[in-house]
Amino acid sequence: MYRTHTCGELNIKNIGNAVTLSGWVQRIRDKGAMLWIDLRDRYGLTQLVFERENIDAELLEKVKSLGREFVIQVTGQVIERESKNPKMETGEIELKVQTLNILNKSLTPPFTIEDESDGGDEIRMKYRYLDLRRTPIKNNIELRHNMGVETRNYLNSHKFFEIETPFLIKSTPEGARDFVVPSRMNQGQFYALPQSPQTFKQLLMVAGYDRYFQIVRCFRDEDLRADRQPEFTQIDCEMAFVEQEDILNMFEGLTKHLFKNVKGIDIHEFPRMSYDFAMKNYGCDKPDLRFKMTFVELNDVVKGKEFKVFDDAELVVGICAKGCAEYTRKQLDELTDFVKRPQIGAMGLIYARYNSDGTLKSSVDKFYNEEELKKWAATFNAEPGDLILILAGKEEKTQKALSELRLEIGNRLGLRKSDVYYPLWVCDFPLLEWDEETQRYYAKHHPFTAPKPEDIHFLEKDPGKVRANAYDLVINGVEVGGGSIRIYDRDLQKQMFGILGFTDEEAQKQFGFLMNAFEYGAPPHGGIAFGFDRICSLFGGSESIRDFIAFPKNNSGRDVMIDSPSEISDLQFNELGIMLKP
Amino acid sequence: MYRTHTCGELNIKNIGNAVTLSGWVQRIRDKGAMLWIDLRDRYGLTQLVFERENIDAELLEKVKSLGREFVIQVTGQVIERESKNPKMETGEIELKVQTLNILNKSLTPPFTIEDESDGGDEIRMKYRYLDLRRTPIKNNIELRHNMGVETRNYLNSHKFFEIETPFLIKSTPEGARDFVVPSRMNQGQFYALPQSPQTFKQLLMVAGYDRYFQIVRCFRDEDLRADRQPEFTQIDCEMAFVEQEDILNMFEGLTKHLFKNVKGIDIHEFPRMSYDFAMKNYGCDKPDLRFKMTFVELNDVVKGKEFKVFDDAELVVGICAKGCAEYTRKQLDELTDFVKRPQIGAMGLIYARYNSDGTLKSSVDKFYNEEELKKWAATFNAEPGDLILILAGKEEKTQKALSELRLEIGNRLGLRKSDVYYPLWVCDFPLLEWDEETQRYYAKHHPFTAPKPEDIHFLEKDPGKVRANAYDLVINGVEVGGGSIRIYDRDLQKQMFGILGFTDEEAQKQFGFLMNAFEYGAPPHGGIAFGFDRICSLFGGSESIRDFIAFPKNNSGRDVMIDSPSEISDLQFNELGIMLKP
Repeated sequence: MYRTHTCGELNIKNIGNAVTLSGWVQRIRDKGAMLWIDLRDRYGLTQLVFERENIDAELLEKVKSLGREFVIQVTGQVIERESKNPKMETGEIELKVQTLNILNKSLTPPFTIEDESDGGDEIRMKYRYLDLRRTPIKNNIELRHNMGVETRNYLNSHKFFEIETPFLIKSTPEGARDFVVPSRMNQGQFYALPQSPQTFKQLLMVAGYDRYFQIVRCFRDEDLRADRQPEFTQIDCEMAFVEQEDILNMFEGLTKHLFKNVKGIDIHEFPRMSYDFAMKNYGCDKPDLRFKMTFVELNDVVKGKEFKVFDDAELVVGICAKGCAEYTRKQLDELTDFVKRPQIGAMGLIYARYNSDGTLKSSVDKFYNEEELKKWAATFNAEPGDLILILAGKEEKTQKALSELRLEIGNRLGLRKSDVYYPLWVCDFPLLEWDEETQRYYAKHHPFTAPKPEDIHFLEKDPGKVRANAYDLVINGVEVGGGSIRIYDRDLQKQMFGILGFTDEEAQKQFGFLMNAFEYGAPPHGGIAFGFDRICSLFGGSESIRDFIAFPKNNSGRDVMIDSPSEISDLQFNELGIMLKP
Repeated sequence: MYRTHTCGELNIKNIGNAVTLSGWVQRIRDKGAMLWIDLRDRYGLTQLVFERENIDAELLEKVKSLGREFVIQVTGQVIERESKNPKMETGEIELKVQTLNILNKSLTPPFTIEDESDGGDEIRMKYRYLDLRRTPIKNNIELRHNMGVETRNYLNSHKFFEIETPFLIKSTPEGARDFVVPSRMNQGQFYALPQSPQTFKQLLMVAGYDRYFQIVRCFRDEDLRADRQPEFTQIDCEMAFVEQEDILNMFEGLTKHLFKNVKGIDIHEFPRMSYDFAMKNYGCDKPDLRFKMTFVELNDVVKGKEFKVFDDAELVVGICAKGCAEYTRKQLDELTDFVKRPQIGAMGLIYARYNSDGTLKSSVDKFYNEEELKKWAATFNAEPGDLILILAGKEEKTQKALSELRLEIGNRLGLRKSDVYYPLWVCDFPLLEWDEETQRYYAKHHPFTAPKPEDIHFLEKDPGKVRANAYDLVINGVEVGGGSIRIYDRDLQKQMFGILGFTDEEAQKQFGFLMNAFEYGAPPHGGIAFGFDRICSLFGGSESIRDFIAFPKNNSGRDVMIDSPSEISDLQFNELGIMLKP
């Protein structure tokens, strides 16, 4: 037996016990007469103590040969510490070691295995198995495990079946780019890895399994942004005989269950907000509601005063930064630079200070006298001490820019606290998005999303006007999950593919199996999928999903630890009947 | 709201309730004055009743338009049935329908949605979403869900972390053939889909996560035998700081937990049997212990009597079929034909009847008198009424043939009951297997399996003699799981790759990341993997894993429902930088 206890469980009650521990050498402190070692395993740290005078030469020799990250097994007696460490679970005791067995040596690690490591990203990715030993990463992996456990507890208790869907499926060009897998047994043909189990979960509804879920890997071959991975995990769910409200309630329940059981937090009922309302008031479809600071439209208030920037603008819109009237010139310049950055792209920033003495002062005093500015202040419900920030231009672009500015101000005011959670549902998304470049409509959610019944009459003549029974779960400005009520009628699905530019033949070839299934008694159904990596990182208070994945890939889609992807052999090329393009 | 109840829950207590149900039309019985419909959902069947005289014309019209598998929503009152059906959960009540809403129509299904369908394999695979509606398949999917739930319950309660490992990994030619995935961002290079998370779970042990599991998809591009799938699911587990006995106990616990909690069966302690013992006594490494009928070696007893078949044989070995002395000539001929089939390949079958009158009669009376036969009987501990069956030839082939015959006799005697479960551990497997064709050793389990310490000295000079710390869980003659204690020493791992024919360079290129990891404090570790599809089918009392997979592939690796694999577009070929071989 390698151990009687773990390194995290011994305490004052164990004093006098003879125990065996196994673990890694975290730290060695040699004070001459006494020598201490912190022994680490998954469960914690236990201090080992060696008294030079009282141990034999052989044991001393072994102890002296140890280095960081050596794996050892020790047997000894639990004793009370002279100087206790109240911060450690095992801080009241130490182990007086009688025998020591070196299970494995270690080279000196290329970076320190501490909460704050001295290793850069690249080296920590290469030696990921060492990075995973660090407590912060271990806590993330444990959190992810707990999230999985509690997700299943909730869904199992609500009669969901976890049903596995295939990974080797069929390539369909709609949506993101597929990873494909050449077939050896069907040469010249390819499987695709699923971007999501969408069609399969709908088929399960047709098959009568009215509550399905799966925590499942999905794949998208996209150029990777900072926080995307080519493979990622979804909590994928679908229900039959439900309306939108049933789904929102069920998964609001799941989210609350996770907050309660993983983080011990009770959350309010989630507000519901239409897409239009969110865009108008927050300039984005995933507003961070930890703070208010809603948009105030000024077109009627500011136009017609010879100020060309406002007069020519499609939209003049602003926010009121509470208590920021005292911002210095430098701070205001920073904000101007912020909105003028290429990724935000505003032309400039207009401000008005509502000074604490009641006077008003703006960056456009040339055009607006104090009387006018008073009207502004009233429109914003501003009070003395507040700062009004205004952007103007094309509607969509201006909303987006002001939304970014709002978040920036939120950051500066400390309104985006990492231990506060504000979930909400954003609903009534548009069904379609027009793409200027390709001159066609794309599905905003996906081609299986049902239009709102009351909007169906727009489908033929003005499809851009149709709203969908689609919804996103947003927490703290992060889209954590999204879903929709689905089409379950063959003809409507066919019409939808037509609007998306599919010929009937293409639609039949790629999604014929689903449309056929709709002819054999498909029930009304809908579902949702949560980004599991994303919700774990949100719960973990981090912005990076990579730290919540045991073995992530870098931004080029490489696993630098195993050095993959890599070349394959001629035999493999021959068996698959493929070759590289010359 | 689509329903107030499911079709499986209404009973005598609900009489008088107004309820709404949704589901599929299973059966319509029109008896003139009365008309009944069985309405089906995932939870059961509820009988709907329509009294022609008492319903309005519109409702009657709707009812008459219904066909099998239509999806309907009905509202009505629960009433007591006149003739109750005690076999149905809902058999005491029926629903007197007031309103009926046709949610979706159905074409006539291509086969009957009944427990025994009239559809052939091919058509049921093509319309898998309809096949999945049948109760026996639904029960399998539910069983699989429950197996997953209970597996996680057990492992979570024993402090295992479920940790996801990557699907886009690196191709390594050892073992079965990989499925590969061309990389677009790293053109000319490929990912491979994992045959198992073996190396990753070992790295997790190096990383200190001493109890890992995952219910995870794995992939092997092999020519498919009847009961293999290109993608399959494993319960994959690994533990650190453990010896073989720790692992056997932990997973014997899991198996018992599953039997208890999924099937309500208490199982005895699992016997442990060495590979050598199993081969000698049952002729195979996965003996079905639901019945005894162990092998009896006869070399010393039968040789030297001028019977060339025995005298020339490497092994003469037999079994005693209890109570089969009365077998007819025809039955014995059938058994002879059975062992002479090409896939078994014995030259013939020798028998001796121990008649109930105490006389003995064999098929080789020319060579063996009754005195001799008495010795045979004594060796077998045979009694009057028994039948002795003997095979002779090359050792391995003869063992294998007699093992098949033993199972056949077990079948004929009804000794292989599908509701009896007899698990055991088979241990001490050979580390290596010699392959005549390629003239090299292969790892019997895999290259990471540790040799038994006491056998390590054979590694250099006589590797075939080395036994491994490897073990299989066998239930009713089926290998349900297998695992081993792993190598955790870089030099031993390197030596092992050498024995398997890797150059140092190849070993470093393919598995360098693992061998490097072993230099940074790798703990002793080991693990096991269960075939999840297999154990589900065993628990479900079926020999086919396909019925326990929601969307299986056929023997050519095709999904005939979605028609995959399929062709991909020129754009995809171009982006990936690959082409088909001309």
